[in-house]
Amino acid sequence: MSITNLFERHEPAGDIMETDVFERRESEVRSYSRNFPKVFDRAYGAFLFDAEGETYLDFLAGCSTLNYGHNHPVLKEALLAYIADDGVAHGLDMFTRAKSEFLRTFEELILKPRALDYQVMFTGPTGANAVESALKLARKVTGRQNIIAFTNGFHGMTMGALSCTGNAGKRAGAGAPLSGVTHMPYDGYMDGLDSAEYLSAMLDNPSSGVDAPAAIIVEAVQGEGGLNAASFAWLKKISEIAKKHGALFILDDIQAGVGRTGKFFSFEDAGFTPDIVTLAKSISGYGLPMALCLFKPELDIWKPGEHNGTFRGNNHAFVTATAALKTFWADDAFEASVAAKSAILKDRLEAMAERFSGIGARVKGRGMMMGLDVGSGDISDIATSRAFENNLVIETSGAHDEVVKVLCPLTIDETDLTRGLDIMEEAIAHAVKQSVKSAA
Amino acid sequence: MSITNLFERHEPAGDIMETDVFERRESEVRSYSRNFPKVFDRAYGAFLFDAEGETYLDFLAGCSTLNYGHNHPVLKEALLAYIADDGVAHGLDMFTRAKSEFLRTFEELILKPRALDYQVMFTGPTGANAVESALKLARKVTGRQNIIAFTNGFHGMTMGALSCTGNAGKRAGAGAPLSGVTHMPYDGYMDGLDSAEYLSAMLDNPSSGVDAPAAIIVEAVQGEGGLNAASFAWLKKISEIAKKHGALFILDDIQAGVGRTGKFFSFEDAGFTPDIVTLAKSISGYGLPMALCLFKPELDIWKPGEHNGTFRGNNHAFVTATAALKTFWADDAFEASVAAKSAILKDRLEAMAERFSGIGARVKGRGMMMGLDVGSGDISDIATSRAFENNLVIETSGAHDEVVKVLCPLTIDETDLTRGLDIMEEAIAHAVKQSVKSAA
Amino acid sequence: MSITNLFERHEPAGDIMETDVFERRESEVRSYSRNFPKVFDRAYGAFLFDAEGETYLDFLAGCSTLNYGHNHPVLKEALLAYIADDGVAHGLDMFTRAKSEFLRTFEELILKPRALDYQVMFTGPTGANAVESALKLARKVTGRQNIIAFTNGFHGMTMGALSCTGNAGKRAGAGAPLSGVTHMPYDGYMDGLDSAEYLSAMLDNPSSGVDAPAAIIVEAVQGEGGLNAASFAWLKKISEIAKKHGALFILDDIQAGVGRTGKFFSFEDAGFTPDIVTLAKSISGYGLPMALCLFKPELDIWKPGEHNGTFRGNNHAFVTATAALKTFWADDAFEASVAAKSAILKDRLEAMAERFSGIGARVKGRGMMMGLDVGSGDISDIATSRAFENNLVIETSGAHDEVVKVLCPLTIDETDLTRGLDIMEEAIAHAVKQSVKSAA
Amino acid sequence: MSITNLFERHEPAGDIMETDVFERRESEVRSYSRNFPKVFDRAYGAFLFDAEGETYLDFLAGCSTLNYGHNHPVLKEALLAYIADDGVAHGLDMFTRAKSEFLRTFEELILKPRALDYQVMFTGPTGANAVESALKLARKVTGRQNIIAFTNGFHGMTMGALSCTGNAGKRAGAGAPLSGVTHMPYDGYMDGLDSAEYLSAMLDNPSSGVDAPAAIIVEAVQGEGGLNAASFAWLKKISEIAKKHGALFILDDIQAGVGRTGKFFSFEDAGFTPDIVTLAKSISGYGLPMALCLFKPELDIWKPGEHNGTFRGNNHAFVTATAALKTFWADDAFEASVAAKSAILKDRLEAMAERFSGIGARVKGRGMMMGLDVGSGDISDIATSRAFENNLVIETSGAHDEVVKVLCPLTIDETDLTRGLDIMEEAIAHAVKQSVKSAA
Repeated sequence: MSITNLFERHEPAGDIMETDVFERRESEVRSYSRNFPKVFDRAYGAFLFDAEGETYLDFLAGCSTLNYGHNHPVLKEALLAYIADDGVAHGLDMFTRAKSEFLRTFEELILKPRALDYQVMFTGPTGANAVESALKLARKVTGRQNIIAFTNGFHGMTMGALSCTGNAGKRAGAGAPLSGVTHMPYDGYMDGLDSAEYLSAMLDNPSSGVDAPAAIIVEAVQGEGGLNAASFAWLKKISEIAKKHGALFILDDIQAGVGRTGKFFSFEDAGFTPDIVTLAKSISGYGLPMALCLFKPELDIWKPGEHNGTFRGNNHAFVTATAALKTFWADDAFEASVAAKSAILKDRLEAMAERFSGIGARVKGRGMMMGLDVGSGDISDIATSRAFENNLVIETSGAHDEVVKVLCPLTIDETDLTRGLDIMEEAIAHAVKQSVKSAA
Repeated sequence: MSITNLFERHEPAGDIMETDVFERRESEVRSYSRNFPKVFDRAYGAFLFDAEGETYLDFLAGCSTLNYGHNHPVLKEALLAYIADDGVAHGLDMFTRAKSEFLRTFEELILKPRALDYQVMFTGPTGANAVESALKLARKVTGRQNIIAFTNGFHGMTMGALSCTGNAGKRAGAGAPLSGVTHMPYDGYMDGLDSAEYLSAMLDNPSSGVDAPAAIIVEAVQGEGGLNAASFAWLKKISEIAKKHGALFILDDIQAGVGRTGKFFSFEDAGFTPDIVTLAKSISGYGLPMALCLFKPELDIWKPGEHNGTFRGNNHAFVTATAALKTFWADDAFEASVAAKSAILKDRLEAMAERFSGIGARVKGRGMMMGLDVGSGDISDIATSRAFENNLVIETSGAHDEVVKVLCPLTIDETDLTRGLDIMEEAIAHAVKQSVKSAA
Repeated sequence: MSITNLFERHEPAGDIMETDVFERRESEVRSYSRNFPKVFDRAYGAFLFDAEGETYLDFLAGCSTLNYGHNHPVLKEALLAYIADDGVAHGLDMFTRAKSEFLRTFEELILKPRALDYQVMFTGPTGANAVESALKLARKVTGRQNIIAFTNGFHGMTMGALSCTGNAGKRAGAGAPLSGVTHMPYDGYMDGLDSAEYLSAMLDNPSSGVDAPAAIIVEAVQGEGGLNAASFAWLKKISEIAKKHGALFILDDIQAGVGRTGKFFSFEDAGFTPDIVTLAKSISGYGLPMALCLFKPELDIWKPGEHNGTFRGNNHAFVTATAALKTFWADDAFEASVAAKSAILKDRLEAMAERFSGIGARVKGRGMMMGLDVGSGDISDIATSRAFENNLVIETSGAHDEVVKVLCPLTIDETDLTRGLDIMEEAIAHAVKQSVKSAA
Repeated sequence: MSITNLFERHEPAGDIMETDVFERRESEVRSYSRNFPKVFDRAYGAFLFDAEGETYLDFLAGCSTLNYGHNHPVLKEALLAYIADDGVAHGLDMFTRAKSEFLRTFEELILKPRALDYQVMFTGPTGANAVESALKLARKVTGRQNIIAFTNGFHGMTMGALSCTGNAGKRAGAGAPLSGVTHMPYDGYMDGLDSAEYLSAMLDNPSSGVDAPAAIIVEAVQGEGGLNAASFAWLKKISEIAKKHGALFILDDIQAGVGRTGKFFSFEDAGFTPDIVTLAKSISGYGLPMALCLFKPELDIWKPGEHNGTFRGNNHAFVTATAALKTFWADDAFEASVAAKSAILKDRLEAMAERFSGIGARVKGRGMMMGLDVGSGDISDIATSRAFENNLVIETSGAHDEVVKVLCPLTIDETDLTRGLDIMEEAIAHAVKQSVKSAA
């Protein structure tokens, strides 16, 4: 599926390549288009094609929304057939063929083999909505208000989800105080601090001032927060603390799920079962809006319609999601290939960390959700700009944007993976040199 | 586009008609599937087809998400072509051809002819997200916290949007107090009360206890709240009160916009320009998740990425949205046809109100967003069940579900509109009879 | 007890008359000292004596804290004896002789004759604290969060009490959003609005957005809010609405209680029994800090110490409170004398209203809690300054300080009452003349 | 001033010794009267006398409200004279002789010698009110909402103050979520955790989720929270963190101030100057309600009356406060005597810790604010009950009531101090024995 020459030009698409309408009409809130100021036209696998005929290798992949790459042909075929046949596109939350097939497949290929007994809630088709529904449910079930979230966590931008998000810039967007959430240190947050012990010490003491929580919400790997990867031991301990204190354990698998860390769920093999799991991003497989909130059957105390939303039944997404599950999760082949590429990625990043040890570079993350902490947002900014000049779309992560983050499609072939990592390495080397110069 | 015989059976779709998987795996929160417990398979125009081969006339239309009907052939063609050509499906908020074309078309066909100078924010693709972004922006711009919302208003289910929503059942889902919003009486809320005067009296008095608002958020017609239609005079007055008190005026046009009341926006010809407008539901035209927040350029103080979301660039939706704008809003033909059908609808509903004057029935709403208030949720429940037995999908609205609500596609032909209204009328007559019986 | 010549000078008290230390050290938050910038030294009955030897008639009386006048001799004697005998001054909430005697007397002279079965909670000795405890209890008992308070209401300045207070200036002092309270129109708030009906209409409709309340808190006469006096019929209706909706009815009698409106409680004879009553200000009788929260026995679900406070056992206040109850409330004589003076006050104010009908003056209030609305804070400011020049301490009330408020001691003799009203009338006449001049 | 025989009986005071009226009429919220179920009649120095003629040594002293003992003769004389002379008892916040004299004395004897330039705000006369005003001011000055408070902190029971209080039982009394406060670990909270470093790590990281604070509020010694004494180094570091992050540093000296730790303020000699200091409890010296909020002049942005309260001018308290300052703080004698007694107290407690090392007993606190942590609330309960049987009033502290707390008057003579410690030691020995038995 690899494209041999990244620099091969396609025919430009005409005036569509102009960006004037965006500058004139799109809100200042737009962000990625600032770093990658091209008009993208088509996409395939690990590649994006702009309107000027340039080809780009995509190491961002919709922030892990395109784990199977752009426009995967099997999914595309299923979607085209469904649309051509006038399959129901929008049906609120009515029963549809597409939803039925998705549910049956999800049950058969995902839940059953992992011995997970979850109810499936089709929330509004965004991660934020899945998180909002999880928080609401936890508060309803426990009758408590407080939510424990973690430093550098990202859970979305609507008021409930944003309260759980750590980033000060995002929080400032609220324009109002965000309440009901206690932020606790994530695994490895501070040298010498056992953050699980600390959480225990705050919840065990009835005079700590930390109210008994309705839920603890955590990402196994923090995608936006700097690719911090919690150890399984820590996650398990947090799940036990939740249980001890009557709180629900919410595993937000929106970015790390659907194979990104090597398994379907990021918490597989960690020795615990979350009470609630949120999924979005790659669940549809095709980049179409879809989100799920999974929870243990005994928690399903919702009244009909108590949480709803117009687009909670995005049937096009159900079609591609079903095709994706059947294509990638019916056997172990995909997991094996991800494991192999993860090993390559890890080796290369470790080599880079050694090469750039002068700036204290270090490898962050887990599975195909890894990156290089280059110590400063200035360096990573120069590096990602340089990479884009060389036709690699790659972004940063972390409180100071200090991590150059590899989020390529899991389906990328090894040649392209290596090619992208080469560009990344050169870009960082360039950035380090620039940085040394400007410091001189 | 009409289908001659609603009772014509298609070939059943096999085991897909079974609902066991929903009962086993889907959360209790599901709602519409309880009233319409069939597995829907295909859809076209104003019709839904279930897996057993039945055809249904759709007077719900995704709660006004399918203003152009199901799977409109022009939109479908555009979408199929885009997908077949590997057009970018998901690109975060990067510039894409599909977004460019949508923006150009929206500017040309919607904004310019109406002399509206709005910046366009692509929020997460749900109405709730558009509302959340509007609230955040208003609070940022004004430095105030309080939002004025109205009785029976519905603005979404995420914590910020839910705070503005009136329905107690929905609010209870929060599991936590909802704050920051003052609920005021809508136009016509209470006999003898001039609710705009009342709002003035509360905001003019510095000791009323109602904090100076960041924004006033209002629907021109309350879709969920009982099809209450505010007069233009009242809306204008509210907009003036907002201005006088330094608050932004947010017109939530998620359900009433995109032609539902006869014009593209529900507030056209009302003599004022909202500071912020939210759109979702029918904006994509095909039922695909998409939402917009429009605001005056001087309000665009967002920092890059201060509000974001993975699916804010749903390019498939942009494609169908563009095709829909070009098909329906390039000239006045569509508006004229909607006006004609609105007149038919109004006549029929008024006749029903007269026929059912014994139960105090009365017509509610405006344009193609009208219904019959039958005075009680019991009667409307029986009526909508009866209608479904006769292959009409129709729902209720209002604090007590007391309004039988007509939300058919705007593209419905007059024959089908009449056919549906016949079924509706028979169903209400049946419900009234049942109700009299059970009261005896 | 009258002093024959208000202008009689006493011997000045030396350097104590200097105000430099206040200017140097006291926070800008000080307020009454700005309008009455003298150093007061001694006080007796209805009179204040400053350090320069001037005598002032006190028509403010500690904002109704000195209903029995300054330093009443019987209370003074009891207090001196208690202190001389080393009676416990401070004992947290331990049992003391002084508390025992107060409780027995309160039970015998206040509760029993009025058939009121209330538990007595000794809160921190401020009205705000009594209100905070009332709100907390109501929320605990009902499990609800929302409190209904009224326009122009004043309930204190701590965060809970302040949330119920209407005044925007006071609210701004919070520096943070005040939540959990819905402000509703008070009796007579808006011409043509039946505010009790309106409250019903908001609570009866499950989609109004007004959450089911834990309590409705109301003053029978709004002391700070402009001497608005609710009718008994309205209060009764509000109490019934509270009952119907499962909310507690809190009567805040901090300013209007202890005889101010003619009876011990402001709600006597109104035909209902509040669930909770707050008392402070004049309950100690001597101006000493003391507050009570009274509630029906079935509401007493507090756990020991769940609300506490260092000074909740101010035994000096208990001593004077007991003496005051025995002196004034053992028979009907005091009530009769207050009724007689109320009639005088009313007649004089009505005459003033007629005299100043040109500025639309009108009488506000009830009992010995009446005043003249002069239509503007400018006029009332000039009037109260002029009155002070003529040795009358009198203040304003209302959202715009538009009411000149008479809050003289209830024990004032008729000569002094008349004398004060003469000064007040002259001052208003002066202010009206000034105001006409400056408008010319 | 010592009374030679604690067991000497006075003449019983008749029916006043009955507790029936409390059982009948006082709310269940009462607490200290449960542990010390006697009716107290008179008090003097370190002694309480009940109505039955029993004498008790008071090691509770109004929770540090009676630092100069009960009814100190010098203060008593000043108060009697003031009352006899008809000094103004209540004057809202008008200038009075008593307030003038207090301010001059406070400036001369407290502020000047310590080079403290504070504005003095007379808040409502409770510690909670002083804290509320401090929080409001900090939020106004900074325009921020978040307050940092510490584990095991106690700051009062009104909604604002309670939000800062750690105790879960107290917090539950709110009946509503408490927001706007982040609780951080106090000095020594967790073994191996540098809690100041941790606070830094949370505030330095813009993605920690801990919003930039308006203020950090801290007690130098936590009176209710278990007599935890912060080191000066830690306090100084916290003050520096506050400064670095633009937050105000509030030192809540309500319990630890006015000599309790050996100096007038608990933070003297610690090397920093708080931005805001709250005082209450012992400031009046006689147990009369009084509270102060002190702050740097540049913070005095209050508008007149923006925070007020009926009893903010308790002149009786000003009189005794002035007398107390002149009696105890005009020279170093009092400080020296407190230092001497602190040494005795420390020696005895250390000896007890050694004697009861079997239960892990350890000394807590600083100055005359020390106690013995006996490891469990069961043991301390038995011990304090036993002590009361032996005529010692002594209480517990800590999240689990695990600390037997010595808060005797600072004026106690050494004989009585020793006598009380003897009773305390015997009581703990008894409790340990009981506890061993019941475990057997």
